[in-house]
Amino acid sequence: MRIALIQNQPLFGAVESNLNRLLTLIESVDADLYVLPELCFSGYQFLSTDELRSLAVDPDGAVIGWFRQAACDRKASIAFGYPERAADGCYNAAMIVTSDGRDLRYRKTHLFYKEKEFFLPGDRGFNVIEWGGVRIGLAVCFDWYFPESFRTLALKGADIIAHCSNLVMPYCQQADFARALENRVYIATANRIGSEERDGEKLTFTGGSVLVSPRGEYLLNLPKDAEAAEVAVIDIALAREKKINRYNDIVADRRPEFYR
Amino acid sequence: MRIALIQNQPLFGAVESNLNRLLTLIESVDADLYVLPELCFSGYQFLSTDELRSLAVDPDGAVIGWFRQAACDRKASIAFGYPERAADGCYNAAMIVTSDGRDLRYRKTHLFYKEKEFFLPGDRGFNVIEWGGVRIGLAVCFDWYFPESFRTLALKGADIIAHCSNLVMPYCQQADFARALENRVYIATANRIGSEERDGEKLTFTGGSVLVSPRGEYLLNLPKDAEAAEVAVIDIALAREKKINRYNDIVADRRPEFYR
Repeated sequence: MRIALIQNQPLFGAVESNLNRLLTLIESVDADLYVLPELCFSGYQFLSTDELRSLAVDPDGAVIGWFRQAACDRKASIAFGYPERAADGCYNAAMIVTSDGRDLRYRKTHLFYKEKEFFLPGDRGFNVIEWGGVRIGLAVCFDWYFPESFRTLALKGADIIAHCSNLVMPYCQQADFARALENRVYIATANRIGSEERDGEKLTFTGGSVLVSPRGEYLLNLPKDAEAAEVAVIDIALAREKKINRYNDIVADRRPEFYR
Repeated sequence: MRIALIQNQPLFGAVESNLNRLLTLIESVDADLYVLPELCFSGYQFLSTDELRSLAVDPDGAVIGWFRQAACDRKASIAFGYPERAADGCYNAAMIVTSDGRDLRYRKTHLFYKEKEFFLPGDRGFNVIEWGGVRIGLAVCFDWYFPESFRTLALKGADIIAHCSNLVMPYCQQADFARALENRVYIATANRIGSEERDGEKLTFTGGSVLVSPRGEYLLNLPKDAEAAEVAVIDIALAREKKINRYNDIVADRRPEFYR
């Protein structure tokens, strides 16, 4: 199986040109699963709920339909982050759309920084979709900070965690080493690049998207400051093998009676 | 507060000379808390339960008394791993003895490799002792692999995790970065060096003891293949501050309703 990490530099609010640029990046590589950043076509730094609402989209609407079509055309699955408009407000959401017309929907569980002012906290927890014999889980950016996020996905059977990100802290790419090992899963962190300065606050995104194997190997290391699309071939069997020697199985060896 | 990491090379079964060497290493540096490896005076690779029983000690007996005396003499606390003889069998145990004559007792929760043949699994969970205004938690070696171990100690209030180790896998020192950050605690991994070859199986211990701050900084990095004692000064206030910006508190932001 081939996984592509796509890292782009969206221009805030320029939805159509951002989507076109994403399509160019997607078409530049052949893969079975494409992982894109958080809020990949809207930009990140909203200044009001009205502004967010104006850029948020319906998960059954035309913009998401564009991703469904791309997945169908490429006989691939695409994981991406987007601002979701719902009846009760907006969510920092992500979705996996599959080549066979299905989807997995996710709403970011752990909101970061000023996201708390504009987005509702996710209300669906962490879930996994099976596609082409592979189980893919979804998480968004700051979810990584809480080991319980990826742990929950792994215990629900994820082989790969598609981690759509707009990282501004410098830690995640290095910490993915532990996240991949402790769960024996593939971690695909797709992170945007560039800066946004709005209302006097400048945020710089750290790029450097990574794909880490269940053995802690960095299979992909994208540049810190350039748009890029890169592909690696992965072996799902590695993620299914939770035994690390003939005595230890990292799932069976858990002792939840002693965990908080 | 000053933390010392002690890494030694015990000779299998040579309890008295191993203890003397540990004392020399301890006396070579001034610290408030000394963290020593797992099974620090017995050696690691037992070949039978009888052999283990012959080297295991009573937590209220003379050998542990030696550590109590050293703590009292140095007005310090000492965390160390040892084989514990109990009525029902032997445990891969650790203890913190304090300058004021108290202790925290721990039995390794997650047994590694052939330890499962000889040791009983720990039955006490993860706990913390307060000493001199600081809260110290105990864990042993392979416990690190399970994020729930250090998470539980952090949620029980640990500022510092004394992590007594005999690491043979190459991962922990690098993964401590995530463990320290995700819990905003100090991680003190004291690891032995050298090899043991017994009954045709050779195990090599990876040394390289590390002290990592709640910000993910490596304050100490000991050599991979030499005995050593090194000290760093730490600021406990850093471990008490769980807010990482004005919106996010990494304890309050947890959402256990979505965790497995």
